[in-house]
Amino acid sequence: MADVYDRLFMMCKRRGIVYPAFEIYGGTAGLFDFGPLGAEIKRNIQNLWRSFYVLREGCAEIECPAITPFEVLKASGHVDEFTDLLVKCQTCGSSFRADHLVEESGYEGAADALDAVAIDGEIAARGIRCPECKSELGGATPMNLMFSTEIGPGSGRRGFLRPETAQGIFTNFGNLYRFFREKMPFGCVQLGRGYRNEISPRQGMLRMREFGMMEAEIFVDPLEKTHPRFCEVKNEMITLVPASTGRETGMTLGEAVSKGVIVNEALAYFMNFTKEFLFAAGIKEGLLRFRQHLPTEMAHYANDCWDAEIHSERFGWVECVGIADRSAYDVEAHMKSSGCDLSAMRRYDEPREIVRKRIIPDMKKMGPLFKGDAAKVKATLDGMDGEGVCGDVELDIDGKKYLVPSDSYRVEKVTEKTIGERFVPHVIEPSYGLDRIFYMIMEHAFEEGEKEGEPYTVTHLKPSIAPIKAGVFPLVSKDGLPELAFKIDRTLRSFGIQTCYDESGTIGRRYARMDEVGTPYCITIDHKSLEDGTVTVRERDTTGQERVKIEELPSFFSKNALGFF
Amino acid sequence: MADVYDRLFMMCKRRGIVYPAFEIYGGTAGLFDFGPLGAEIKRNIQNLWRSFYVLREGCAEIECPAITPFEVLKASGHVDEFTDLLVKCQTCGSSFRADHLVEESGYEGAADALDAVAIDGEIAARGIRCPECKSELGGATPMNLMFSTEIGPGSGRRGFLRPETAQGIFTNFGNLYRFFREKMPFGCVQLGRGYRNEISPRQGMLRMREFGMMEAEIFVDPLEKTHPRFCEVKNEMITLVPASTGRETGMTLGEAVSKGVIVNEALAYFMNFTKEFLFAAGIKEGLLRFRQHLPTEMAHYANDCWDAEIHSERFGWVECVGIADRSAYDVEAHMKSSGCDLSAMRRYDEPREIVRKRIIPDMKKMGPLFKGDAAKVKATLDGMDGEGVCGDVELDIDGKKYLVPSDSYRVEKVTEKTIGERFVPHVIEPSYGLDRIFYMIMEHAFEEGEKEGEPYTVTHLKPSIAPIKAGVFPLVSKDGLPELAFKIDRTLRSFGIQTCYDESGTIGRRYARMDEVGTPYCITIDHKSLEDGTVTVRERDTTGQERVKIEELPSFFSKNALGFF
Repeated sequence: MADVYDRLFMMCKRRGIVYPAFEIYGGTAGLFDFGPLGAEIKRNIQNLWRSFYVLREGCAEIECPAITPFEVLKASGHVDEFTDLLVKCQTCGSSFRADHLVEESGYEGAADALDAVAIDGEIAARGIRCPECKSELGGATPMNLMFSTEIGPGSGRRGFLRPETAQGIFTNFGNLYRFFREKMPFGCVQLGRGYRNEISPRQGMLRMREFGMMEAEIFVDPLEKTHPRFCEVKNEMITLVPASTGRETGMTLGEAVSKGVIVNEALAYFMNFTKEFLFAAGIKEGLLRFRQHLPTEMAHYANDCWDAEIHSERFGWVECVGIADRSAYDVEAHMKSSGCDLSAMRRYDEPREIVRKRIIPDMKKMGPLFKGDAAKVKATLDGMDGEGVCGDVELDIDGKKYLVPSDSYRVEKVTEKTIGERFVPHVIEPSYGLDRIFYMIMEHAFEEGEKEGEPYTVTHLKPSIAPIKAGVFPLVSKDGLPELAFKIDRTLRSFGIQTCYDESGTIGRRYARMDEVGTPYCITIDHKSLEDGTVTVRERDTTGQERVKIEELPSFFSKNALGFF
Repeated sequence: MADVYDRLFMMCKRRGIVYPAFEIYGGTAGLFDFGPLGAEIKRNIQNLWRSFYVLREGCAEIECPAITPFEVLKASGHVDEFTDLLVKCQTCGSSFRADHLVEESGYEGAADALDAVAIDGEIAARGIRCPECKSELGGATPMNLMFSTEIGPGSGRRGFLRPETAQGIFTNFGNLYRFFREKMPFGCVQLGRGYRNEISPRQGMLRMREFGMMEAEIFVDPLEKTHPRFCEVKNEMITLVPASTGRETGMTLGEAVSKGVIVNEALAYFMNFTKEFLFAAGIKEGLLRFRQHLPTEMAHYANDCWDAEIHSERFGWVECVGIADRSAYDVEAHMKSSGCDLSAMRRYDEPREIVRKRIIPDMKKMGPLFKGDAAKVKATLDGMDGEGVCGDVELDIDGKKYLVPSDSYRVEKVTEKTIGERFVPHVIEPSYGLDRIFYMIMEHAFEEGEKEGEPYTVTHLKPSIAPIKAGVFPLVSKDGLPELAFKIDRTLRSFGIQTCYDESGTIGRRYARMDEVGTPYCITIDHKSLEDGTVTVRERDTTGQERVKIEELPSFFSKNALGFF
C-alpha cells in the first residue's frame, strides 16, 4: 500500500499540482515542475509570506541574480564549507551521501556533524555496503554542493548558482542602510530560488536541487536585540525542544527569554512570527515545534539557532524553517573580503566630546620614506589609537609591511566631537524552505475519506492558499445558465479571483473535483438565479449552502478568499 | 551631459530601484539587483501580465526549474544553434560580439544574420580593430551562450541554465493537454528567469545575462489558427512594419489578416493583446510598433514572427516582445527525441468509419524469426498502411533492420470506427522580455522638470505599476497625528496596499520624494482629521487634492491602485 506521500503525489500529478521535471526524458532526480494548480499554491504561499514580512513587518524586498561570482561565495564560506561527504561504490560507481547511509543504518544523533574520518569509522563499524549492489564502499570525500559555471563564455571567470538568497542581501547592506535612511533595526527579504547540487536526492519534494526559499535578514544593533512589538506577543505559548534537555516543552515567549532558553527577544519574536505564518498557511497546531540546534550542529559564529519542525506522517519531524542569530559574521566577512565599509552608525542623543590620542605623522619624513605608499601609511596611522604607541611602529597594510621610525611621528592628545559610533550590524535570519512548507501544507490538508461507498478526497486548504477560489457551475448547459455563469466567472476574475468554470457532469461530480484540489467555495447558477439574481454558494468543509446576490460575490470572495491580514 | 539612461539609472540607484549586482566586489557585467522599490515594480508588471494572460485569457501558469538536462536543449536546437560569433583581440585578449562590432561600424541591416565567413569579411573590409587597444582581431568563432553546469557533483551529467522558459512548457505538453481535458486550443504561460551567457554585455538593463521572461505558448490546431474573440478586436488599429515594405503603416487587425500581412487570426489577436498589455503597463502610444522579421532573421520553422518594438530616447527602437507562429517545430522535436507521444486528438463530430488495408502478421512464423523483437516488429506492421505492400518487407526500427518475408504476413481490408485523428499542435508564442519592458516603462514615465527653480522629477507610473501606492504623512509630528497616520498606514497595508509612512521634512519635500518614485497618491493627516475623520488625498499628476473619509481609503485604493482589469 502506497503511503501518504505516494498517494498525495499521485493526486498532485493527476490534478496538475506537481510533476516530476523533464519526465518525458526519464526525469531528473531533485527537480520538479509545478503544474497549473501547484504554481498557484506556491504563489499564494509566497504572497501570504509577503503579507507577513513586507506589509505587516515593514521589511524591504529585493531580487538578486542566482548567478554569483566566486569572490562572494568565497567570502561567505560556501566555497570552502558548503560540502557533504560523498562515498562511491567501488564496484558499480553509484554515489551516496555518507551521512544519510550512516543515519539509515540506525545511527542516533546528527550524522551530518561527523567528519570524514568519523564517517569512515561508522561505515566500517556498521558494515554499511552499497545500497545498489551490496559491494564495498570507498572512503568519504567532501564534495562541494554548489552548481558551478563560467560567467562569460570562454572567460574562465568562475561563478556559482547561489546556495541561498541571503548573500544578495548581505552584499547590499550599504544600499539598504541608505534606503532605510540609516535607521536601525530594519529587515530585508528575498524570495527566490536556491540551488544545492545534491549527491543523490531521494526524499522527493523534501530534497530538491533547485528549490524555493523565502529568507529574511533582520539587521539589528548588537546592543539592542529587542523588538518593538515583543511586548504584544510575550504571553504567546510556543512549543520548544531546547538543546539542553532535548525534550518537548511548552512555555511563553517571555518565559523562554527570561530563562535564557531563547537567547534574545528579537529571535523569540521571529520564532513566534514564524509560528503565526505557518498556522495561517494551514499547518496544524500540535504538528509544529521549535528545536534548538545542538552545539555540534550550530555554525561556530551563531549565537543561537532554532529549526521550526513540522510533523509529517511519512517523514516524521521535518526542518522547514531555520531561525538563527548569525551575529556579525556575514557582514564582517564581506567587509573584509571586499574592502568596503558595511558598518552602521549608533547615533548619540547629542554629540559627545571624545578625548583620544592621535598619531600625527611628519609628512616631510614619510614622503621620502614610503613614496607612493605614504598616503596609505598616513591613513592607517590616522585610524589608529595612539594610546601606548612609542618607538618604531611596524605596520601591515594589505599584507605589505612598513616600518615607521620613531622620529617620523608624534602622539598628541586631541578632543574630537562625534555624533555616534560605528558598529557592524548583527543579523537575525528566519530562512524558510518553500517546497517543504508546500508539501507539509498539502499533507496536513489532505483528507482521504469515503462518500457513498466510494473513495472521496477533500483537501482542506486555507482559502488564501487554495489555487482556485471558486468553482462556477451552471446547473444545466442550457436555458441561458451557461451565459450567466460565464459572466459571473469573468467578473470574479476581473477582481483577481481565480475561478474554475465547469459545466460537465453532475453537480456532485463537479463538487468532488473541486474538493479534491481544495477549492473553498462552489457557486451554482440555477433557474432561480435568472429570476432573482442570487446563486448558491457551497462551502467545502461544512458543505453548507447559502444564497448570495450575484453583485455581492466579488466582495464575498475578496473578504473570504484573498490572503490579506 | 549624461543621457536619459544614465540620469534615470542614477535615480534608480539612489532611490532603491536598481543596483549593479555585487557592486562591493566591483560588479559583474550583465547582472543587476532589483532594490526594494524595483522589485515591487517588477512584481507589479508580472501581476498585471498575469491578469491579462491567466485571469482574462484563461491560460494555465506553470513553474519549471532553470536547470535543464542536456537532452532537452539538444532536442530544442539550443545546444547546436544558440550561439553568437565571438572575436578575440590578438593582443589584449578582450572578447567581443562580432556582429555588434560590425553594426557599430555602420553596417546597415541585421549583422547577427551573417555567418563567420561573412563577418570576418566585414571586419577586414571595414578595418575594425579591438575597441580596447586598437590591435588586430582574430577570426570569428561561434560560442554557445548557455551557462553550462553539472547535475550531481562529480556525476559528469551535463546540464544548462535554461535560455528560455518555453521548453518547460513544451516538454509538459502531455500533462497540460490532460489538465485541459484534451480540449484545444489552450494556453500555458511561465514567468521566470532565463539565462544567456553574453560575451560582453554593454547595454545595461537591455542586455542582461540573467533576465526576467514572461512567455506564453498557445497550443492550436494547425487547421484552426483562429481565436474565439478575434471578432471583438478586428477593428483595432495597430502600427506595423511589414517585412515586404520595411515602412511603418497603420491598419486594422482585420485588414492585416485579410491582406495576408499577418499570417493568421491567432497571431494577430496576440499582437493586439500585447499592445493592450503594454499600454496598460505605461508604454506611451506612438512609441510602440510591430516589426515583422525579415526572411533572413526568421527561424526556418516559423510561419511568421513580429517583434513589438518600443522606442527609447537612448537606444532607438528596442525589441521587447517577440510574437511568433512557431508551427509544430518544438513539440515535434521533443516527440522525436524523447520517443513520447505529444500529439493531440481532433475529434470528429461523430465517429467515422474508415476503410483501410491492414498488415496481419503470422505470429507462428514471426516468433521463431525475430524472437524477442517479434512484438516490436508486429507493432510496427500494425501501425503501417497496408496499401500497396507486397513481397518481402524491409523495416528499420530504431536503427535496426528487419526483413519480413512475404509468407509471414497478409494484407486485409478492414473497416474501423474512429472518433478522431491525431495531430501535432502548432504553437503561437508571445515572449516578453521583462527587464526591457521595465526599463521602457521607467523611461516613458520619467519626467525631469523644475519647480521653483530647482530640478524636480516626477515618474508618471501607472498606479497599478507604482511600487508605493500611497505616501502617508502626519502634517506635524505631534498632537496625536503620527498615531492616527500610523493606524491608517497599517490599515491600508492590511488590504494589500503598499504604503510609505513619512514624517520627516516639509510636506512639499515629502511630496517630492514620492513624485520621484512614482507614488500616485499622498495622504496627509492634519488636525481636521482628528475632528471629522477625513484626510487629504493628493494626486500626483494633477496635484489636485480632495478630502476623503478615512474609512473609505481601502476601497479608494483597491479601486484606483491595484492592478485588476
